[in-house]
Parts: sequence; C-alpha cells; structure tokens
Amino acid sequence: MKNIAVVGYGVIGKRVADAIKVQDDMKLVGVCDIISDWRIQNAVRKDYDIYATTTEAEKQMKASGISVMGNMQDLLDKVELVVDCTPKMIAAKNVETYKTHNIKFILHGGEKHETTGHSFSAENNYNTALNINATRVVSCNTTSILRTLTALKRADLLDYARGTLLRRATDPWESHLGGIMNTMVPEKEIPSHQGPDAQSVDPDLDVITSAVKVPQTLSHMHYWNVKLKKETSKEEVLNALKTSSRIKFIHYDQGLVSNNTIKEMFLDMGRPWGDMYEVALWEDMLKVVGDELFYAYVVDNQAIVIPETIDAIRALTGIEMDGNKSIAKTNKSLGINQ
Amino acid sequence: MKNIAVVGYGVIGKRVADAIKVQDDMKLVGVCDIISDWRIQNAVRKDYDIYATTTEAEKQMKASGISVMGNMQDLLDKVELVVDCTPKMIAAKNVETYKTHNIKFILHGGEKHETTGHSFSAENNYNTALNINATRVVSCNTTSILRTLTALKRADLLDYARGTLLRRATDPWESHLGGIMNTMVPEKEIPSHQGPDAQSVDPDLDVITSAVKVPQTLSHMHYWNVKLKKETSKEEVLNALKTSSRIKFIHYDQGLVSNNTIKEMFLDMGRPWGDMYEVALWEDMLKVVGDELFYAYVVDNQAIVIPETIDAIRALTGIEMDGNKSIAKTNKSLGINQ
Repeated sequence: MKNIAVVGYGVIGKRVADAIKVQDDMKLVGVCDIISDWRIQNAVRKDYDIYATTTEAEKQMKASGISVMGNMQDLLDKVELVVDCTPKMIAAKNVETYKTHNIKFILHGGEKHETTGHSFSAENNYNTALNINATRVVSCNTTSILRTLTALKRADLLDYARGTLLRRATDPWESHLGGIMNTMVPEKEIPSHQGPDAQSVDPDLDVITSAVKVPQTLSHMHYWNVKLKKETSKEEVLNALKTSSRIKFIHYDQGLVSNNTIKEMFLDMGRPWGDMYEVALWEDMLKVVGDELFYAYVVDNQAIVIPETIDAIRALTGIEMDGNKSIAKTNKSLGINQ
Repeated sequence: MKNIAVVGYGVIGKRVADAIKVQDDMKLVGVCDIISDWRIQNAVRKDYDIYATTTEAEKQMKASGISVMGNMQDLLDKVELVVDCTPKMIAAKNVETYKTHNIKFILHGGEKHETTGHSFSAENNYNTALNINATRVVSCNTTSILRTLTALKRADLLDYARGTLLRRATDPWESHLGGIMNTMVPEKEIPSHQGPDAQSVDPDLDVITSAVKVPQTLSHMHYWNVKLKKETSKEEVLNALKTSSRIKFIHYDQGLVSNNTIKEMFLDMGRPWGDMYEVALWEDMLKVVGDELFYAYVVDNQAIVIPETIDAIRALTGIEMDGNKSIAKTNKSLGINQ
C-alpha cells in the first residue's frame, strides 16, 4: 500500500483523488490546495484529509470552517509519491520541493517534457516508467493520439498519421470566464504541438497535427488521415484498434452523432461528472480507402488522463511491474470496458 | 448586352442580382420570388423589377404595396438566361420550365450535377461551359477546394489532397430557426460529398474530404494535408497558389486569427454584407514538410460563389470566350484583388 498525495484539487486533481480512492494497492493520504470556496467542499464532503498549500491558505480554510490537517510540507512528509494537478506551469515550480523531499512525482501535460525527462502513456511505454522518480502524463489530446496510433503500430499497419484537432474552447466549469463565441481560432503553428508531444513518448511515430479552437465546451474532436503500410481491410484496422482497451467504439447509426449525445450517454452510465476515460471512436464512420485510413473520435479532456495517472502511479512506485495488469486493474476499478 | 433573370431572392439571389447590376455586358431584367416581407423590400429599395413566382404570391405582394411587374412566365419571356437561386432541390423542379421556354439556366451547389450535366468553377473549366445551355456553380466548399487545388495542379505540384472541413452551423440570418449549440456534429459519411463534388468539375483531382458542423455562423474553415509530387519550397507553393486571383492571402501575425476577425476586415473594406468572394488562406500558417503541404483557410459560404456565377453567365451566353478575361472583369467589378 503506497501513500499518495494529490496537490492541486481542480478538474484533474479531484478526479485523480477519487480514482486513487477506489484502488486497493494505493492510499490517498490527502489533497492539497489553496482554495477555500465551494470547490474544496467537494473534498470535505468526501472526507478527504485536506492540506493547505500556504500558511495564508490554511488560515482562510480554517476561517471557512474547513478542518485542515496541515500544510503542504506536512502532507509531503507522509507520502512517497505526489500527483501534481496544479494549473499549467505551476507544477514546474513545485518540482524543486518534491525533489528536496525525495518524493516521486507525476505531472500533467501542461508541463514540459524536460521537467521530468519522461512522458507517459500507459499502453505505449509503461515499462520505461518502472521505478523512476518522475513522469509527465501527457495531455488529453496527446493521450488519445498515442492510444490510437500505438494500436495501429502494434499491428504493424501504421506508416504515418496526419490529424486535425478541433479543440474545445474552455473547460465547462470555467465558461463564465469567457471562451470564444461564434468563431473558430486556429493555433498559429502548423504543425501544432501535439505531434511532437506524442513523440516525447514514442519518437518513432510519424505524426503531424493541426489544431483549431471551436466554440463549445464538451470535448475535443479529432479527424485523422492515416497512411497505412499496405492496403488493408476495415476489419483488420478495427481489430488493431480493438487491442486498446481504452478506445470505446461508438456508432453514429445508434444516435451518437455529436459531442453532446456522447456526453449524455456517459452521464447515463453513471460515470462521475459523465467522465469518458476512453477515446470514443466512430466505428461506422471509419473508412479505409486503399492504403489510407480515415476516422474521427472524441476526447474528454477532463477525464482521459485519469486512468493513465493511476497506471503511472503503479509504474513509478513499482507496485505492479506488468503494464497490462495495471491497465486491466485500473480499467476494472473505473468501469472501463469496451 | 444579355438579359438575365434571378429566380429566388435569398442569400445567394440578392447577391447575384447586385453583382449582375454592376456588370456592363449583362442586364438584370428582374428578380422573382414568392415572399412579400422585409426580405423583398431590399429589391424594392434597389429599384429592381420584381416578379412573383405564383399568382397567389403576386396577390400578396400587391397587398403588401409592392409593385409587381408580372409573374415568373412574364419574366422568363424577357431573358435568355436565368440564374436560379431557390433553396436546395427547388431549382430542380424549375428546370423543366426553363427548358420549355428554351432559356439557358444556372443552378447552384445544392442541386445535383446530373440536373445540368455540367458543373462550373471559373478557374478550372470555364472553357467547357462556353455556349452550353446549363451549368451548376458548385457549392461554396467545393469552389474553395477547386480554386486552391487547381492552382497547385497548374504548377504540377499536386499529387493528392486530404481535407477536414469545419462547416458553419447555419446561415447567420437564419440562426433564430436553430442551429447546433455547444457541440460538434460530424457528417456521417467519410469521405464527405465535397471530394466527389470537386471531381464533378475536375475528375482528375485526387481529393478526399471529411466534414463536421461546428456551432458558429460566420464561415467555413478547411484544414488540408496535401501530398505534393516532389519536395518543394514554401515559396514555390505560394507562387502556385498566387496564380489564383481569388485566393486572399492573410496573415495570422497581423491579427487575423479567426473567422470573426476576417469577417470584420471585409466589413471594414465596405464589401456589401462584408462579403468575402475570395478564399482567405493563411500565408504564415502554411507549412511545407518535405513533399507534404499543410494549410488552412476560411470560406464565406454566402459570397464565394457570386463571382463564379457571373463568370458562368458569361460562359453560357458566350459574351466572353476567354475565361481569364471574364475572371478579370468580374474581379474588377466586385473589388477582388489580391
């Protein structure tokens, strides 16, 4: 039983905390944040031990009637691994603290690869993360790219892949802060960063992406043109993709025609926040033309990295040396099944 | 001076009428519609001769105080070519009438290629439309595809092209009737129809498209992955694209970062309705990687076919036998210059 802390209790942190809680080989020692409003009340309700990032935050939390177990240092003293879920670029500053305390740590995709020297995607490179001190679970978009392309690569079908990424405008709970309306905003750089980011996990992937922000908050959508190594059947492609347990095959013909219908289905399934840990890939839309493959899928940017993070904890702490076993265990605990 | 009629005074028809009006080699004899509300008042204000599609419509127009010159038959008697701008699939029914009256006609992209047996895109196949009886000006998306790919083909650079088309949800003036909100809706079929539609003009093009509807009303946006025949420089690609006078090269670095900023610039330019007849292609975003080309552009779905329609009138009536001269003339009249 490994002791784990979650630092940063935002959209990722609160999900990681819940996911750790349902594992039987790791223990959530506490969560740490700076906020004292309704957001941290979620942790109070769930009876998580709460720690304050700063002395000032501790005072405010106490003033708000929150029972605080101590500060971040106190939390770090009790754990051997921290999952840092603080906003983009803040984690990079926390890293020195983790190193000083000789604590293993996991960062997320907003941080640079260089900060940890290792980037993680469970189905691709679990083995290389075994017992190392730090890794970065790559971003939602990159995770989806790696799952799908790794599956094609395993079947020796992948030559190269070119993708157009339609990104959501803002996180749903933050839409009052503003997001684009009635327009689309390309990322200036073509290729966009997600291709090189996927290569930080698997340098062999020949992948180029372009990205554009669209005015909706539910999830990302990717369109892919993939060059296969040979002329192949749709069945063979599907068999390859189905070797990933974290791709959910959906059917347009069954009314799943859009981001919102997919979201509603996952809410129907009783997933917390309607979370979709899987890449939702349209099986009936997928098309093979000669040696070219075309498909589209949807990515839940708040949820897809959660199972990856649990696997990363197992790899870094060495509580499970077999990636496939970790993935199966995580899947079962979170209700992921094709 | 050729006598031309516009049947259907909607988003395309009202633009076509204005565009005919500013040509010196054709005459707008009248516009014909069924409506008697604020929309037809635009034609009244512009002093266009107004004809009613049906007897019932004629009564209602007169009751609304509109001076009506006659019915559709009366209009057809006075012209040698009709530009039909009625809503999707209605034009197909009018075709029999035009044929009975032995009048040349132009349809738009909502109709099937088979209805006319010829599909038109000025820079690609003006010559094949000379003095024929009917053509179909292809849709906005297809027009943009043909302009860009034809330019690459002329320079013998194009091997094949794969595009992702982000389509606007609804026409801006109709957004009260409903459009998608906070979601994206893929077209079920991959490849989508625009690729084969471009081939109805140019069967040699190797083009495959996927399309998805996004919740905004301003314009379409396309992302392209193009395989070139050889490794090429960005300069060579730009030189090829610049042989089209109807591609407007825009720069992300000059603040044109989205559909809305582009729209505002065209409004600033004093274009009617802020119309963008050109494909607005980001020059600084365009990237060449080896023998692959990546670029994105924006398409005004209400305006891009207007200059094409004027050229189609010239080709069908034979008032200009040289496509390049027609294009130059149309461009000048509408203020199109790179």
